[in-house]
Amino acid sequence: MDLKSLVRDIPDFPKPGILFRDITTLLRDPEGLRYTIDFLAQKCNEAGITADYIIGIESRGFIFGSPLAYKLETGFIPVRKKGKLPGAVHSIEYELEYGTDCLEVHQDGLHQGSRILIVDDLIATGGTASATAKLVQKIGCELVGFGFIIELRDLEGRKSLPDVPIISLIEY
Amino acid sequence: MDLKSLVRDIPDFPKPGILFRDITTLLRDPEGLRYTIDFLAQKCNEAGITADYIIGIESRGFIFGSPLAYKLETGFIPVRKKGKLPGAVHSIEYELEYGTDCLEVHQDGLHQGSRILIVDDLIATGGTASATAKLVQKIGCELVGFGFIIELRDLEGRKSLPDVPIISLIEY
Repeated sequence: MDLKSLVRDIPDFPKPGILFRDITTLLRDPEGLRYTIDFLAQKCNEAGITADYIIGIESRGFIFGSPLAYKLETGFIPVRKKGKLPGAVHSIEYELEYGTDCLEVHQDGLHQGSRILIVDDLIATGGTASATAKLVQKIGCELVGFGFIIELRDLEGRKSLPDVPIISLIEY
Repeated sequence: MDLKSLVRDIPDFPKPGILFRDITTLLRDPEGLRYTIDFLAQKCNEAGITADYIIGIESRGFIFGSPLAYKLETGFIPVRKKGKLPGAVHSIEYELEYGTDCLEVHQDGLHQGSRILIVDDLIATGGTASATAKLVQKIGCELVGFGFIIELRDLEGRKSLPDVPIISLIEY
């Protein structure tokens, strides 16, 4: 299946000069959604990734991470922006182009030695994925891989990530 | 499976006096996640609900709506807060306790006559679900049901919803 044909390009979002890769057109296609999750699961298996938990990064990472967890029969753990999770959290601050942002995960969600696969819709410069990896490793979890639907190769995001299998389904 | 035992109660979140029903403890349990999605799908089938699309409401609705769409082999469509979707949108304003909020859906995501199942993690007073239903019906879609993991019965949220099957898995 030509997944790339199901992704829509939207110029100048969220700001002028940015070409946004919109995955809602893929999601609303029943076969596209099914194929995406099955293909991601297959690639994880081929890469020898066996995770205890899949982490989805707020909020498009939820859309892909949760069905992947369902398919692979793992638990699902959301990583969220500051203040969204109700329980006690581990948190990490990271640099944006302008200013900083903060990601949080429940303290009782992850344990030392848990095998973690991090999932998001897209990797660009890798800032968010890299911060999530640091958060997970700070807790003492074992990071076993990353899964992205889209990878923007020119931005070399994977260079900022730890040396574990990095899966992406569509490249630009 | 006793799903309720997998939900965690957190007092005074997001503000004093509110008892928050936290579903992250359910999600991180592989069997809990799997059972929840399968049970929701089974209840949809038993209620005779056949949807073309499942709408998930940002952002916890994404976590349940997307795997349900995967399981039921439908498309998935996110309904998001104002300004988050990149394409042209239909939008609806609705009243909160203090002030108003706004929900949006892509214009090309939904068509007249599409059969829609709306999914969220929890129904309390029903304000968000009711607004989403109005948005969907304004476009001319056929609303075929609602699916919630948790229903807070005392708040009588289902009274604010249209007369279609309303499924909830856990009641308080």
